[in-house]
Amino acid sequence: MENIKVGLWGLGSMGGGMGRILAKKDGVELAAGIDLDPNKIGKDLGDVLGIEKLGVKVSDDAEDILDDSLDLVILATSSFLKDVAPQIKLLLNKGINVISIAEEMAFPEAQDPDLADELDELARENGVSLLGTGINPGFVLDLMIIALSGVCSEVERIEASRINDLSPFGPTVMKTQGVGTTVEEFEEGLKSGKIVGHIGFKESIYMIAKRLGIKLDEVKETREPIVSNTYRETEHVKVEEGMVAGCKHIAKGYSDGKEVIVLNHPQQIHPEKEGVETGDYIKIIGDPGVDMAITPEIAGGTGTMAVAVNMIPHLINAEPGLHTMADLPVPGAILANMGNLLK
Amino acid sequence: MENIKVGLWGLGSMGGGMGRILAKKDGVELAAGIDLDPNKIGKDLGDVLGIEKLGVKVSDDAEDILDDSLDLVILATSSFLKDVAPQIKLLLNKGINVISIAEEMAFPEAQDPDLADELDELARENGVSLLGTGINPGFVLDLMIIALSGVCSEVERIEASRINDLSPFGPTVMKTQGVGTTVEEFEEGLKSGKIVGHIGFKESIYMIAKRLGIKLDEVKETREPIVSNTYRETEHVKVEEGMVAGCKHIAKGYSDGKEVIVLNHPQQIHPEKEGVETGDYIKIIGDPGVDMAITPEIAGGTGTMAVAVNMIPHLINAEPGLHTMADLPVPGAILANMGNLLK
Repeated sequence: MENIKVGLWGLGSMGGGMGRILAKKDGVELAAGIDLDPNKIGKDLGDVLGIEKLGVKVSDDAEDILDDSLDLVILATSSFLKDVAPQIKLLLNKGINVISIAEEMAFPEAQDPDLADELDELARENGVSLLGTGINPGFVLDLMIIALSGVCSEVERIEASRINDLSPFGPTVMKTQGVGTTVEEFEEGLKSGKIVGHIGFKESIYMIAKRLGIKLDEVKETREPIVSNTYRETEHVKVEEGMVAGCKHIAKGYSDGKEVIVLNHPQQIHPEKEGVETGDYIKIIGDPGVDMAITPEIAGGTGTMAVAVNMIPHLINAEPGLHTMADLPVPGAILANMGNLLK
Repeated sequence: MENIKVGLWGLGSMGGGMGRILAKKDGVELAAGIDLDPNKIGKDLGDVLGIEKLGVKVSDDAEDILDDSLDLVILATSSFLKDVAPQIKLLLNKGINVISIAEEMAFPEAQDPDLADELDELARENGVSLLGTGINPGFVLDLMIIALSGVCSEVERIEASRINDLSPFGPTVMKTQGVGTTVEEFEEGLKSGKIVGHIGFKESIYMIAKRLGIKLDEVKETREPIVSNTYRETEHVKVEEGMVAGCKHIAKGYSDGKEVIVLNHPQQIHPEKEGVETGDYIKIIGDPGVDMAITPEIAGGTGTMAVAVNMIPHLINAEPGLHTMADLPVPGAILANMGNLLK
């Protein structure tokens, strides 16, 4: 059996991490690396990943180095659909399957239905498949909700929370979540768009609604500062009492004027300082009801890397087109040769 | 859009329940009913289900009344592969998709790989699909484990339990679980095969192992009486102190001589009498780890009915052949027209 040939586009912490996971798996080989960082360009991909040499040079020129000898590229360059769409188009036009960890690619219809259709058609024309995935969106607050609703013959309301700890994350996440700001700065940041909270609520809610057949009137989001009652700090930020330790971001999907899907994702550093237990929680009010807790929450970074890697054979097997996690088989850990899972 | 035409083979509590769920759904119609019960034969299916008349007479002659005007038949006649295989062959030969809730059909390779291959080929030859499903096996101790392992890049060990309450079940379940026996009778029942405990452990363990790529040396099962320290009773059984309230059934899958998958399913009446909380629990020791609890456990009866119904459009969409829950999209509640989910 030939190895599955995978390229990595984006060699930051996520792309690099996925590269190191893939390097340990059987039946798959890292066959291309693309990044814009001058410190990575021209180096051996193995050196950039901190593993053995791979005989593949990192390039900044995707157009030049990618071709359909690659089975699939994992795209880890941006969170936003508008940023990754040109990169995805380039890959699809070259006849390469694409897994993107851009949050907005988990369900691109939510941001831009026309662009989603365009990507779907382009994938079909080129006989390849496209998927956006990750822990959230892509798994916890959408795929798991859909799967658990599968045991229900009726669903009245869905309430789910992902309560996590931002402490391990770097300075960019601290800024986009408003960690270390004053309440005033937080409010200004929301207005200016510098503080965004969670990216992916719309994607999750639309994915759930479409699959279950819930007609949404609208999705409303609120973002509030989590004001700390105690001193908290990480390597990258210090939060005095009275300052902002994170962002409490809630999204609600309404149908016939009623809240039917309520997703809650408060993100802060050191939640344990105020007795907050982290976890993923899903409650479905239906027949029968379901009440699930995963404690602590599924790890965001390593979980996203694993989900994306574990979907590789399933996306290659899929019919050409744009897919979501709701229409492919569930991911599962891949502990033997990845090629065994190819049809 | 035309309605999906579904037949029900087996109109007991499960088949009947699925019929009542389907009768409330849009985009699907009940088009045939088969049962051996003389009290049901010849009656209108709606009368047998306790709903409005459907204009379909219940028959005991599947060969006679079934044809490929049906899109799918839900088979709810037996737990065992050898019992349902002839029924499944008849259906496949007639060009009808089949969803079976026989526990051993969740992963028929586990009991009889040759028969599984035969059913797969027969389905392909006839251009239709076949699936075994239910809450367990089919969802809790296999699909959910596989799905959660999807966030892991490495898995060392899987431990899962389904701790449930048998109190709502009828006399057959009491007998097969040994509820109300003395310890001596329980041991004799195990030897004679009258007491079986849970049906489906092998199916779940082999399904997980195949999907994750774990090479199993063997699967070992143990069944022990749950001896009651208190008086417990249901409508169908009385358990004095010192008698058996249920069966503690454990299955372990070994790989390279090590326990890698441990599934625990103690089933008893009124577990709350001795402070036992019911629930579904999955723990994956891996990178990252996952620790999930669903409390109380997902309802067995109504959950099985819902899962089977919710898989209908996904099985119709699937490529011809034998499927498992691990290779189809996850079920999800179907709250709008079922036909919207057809490709």
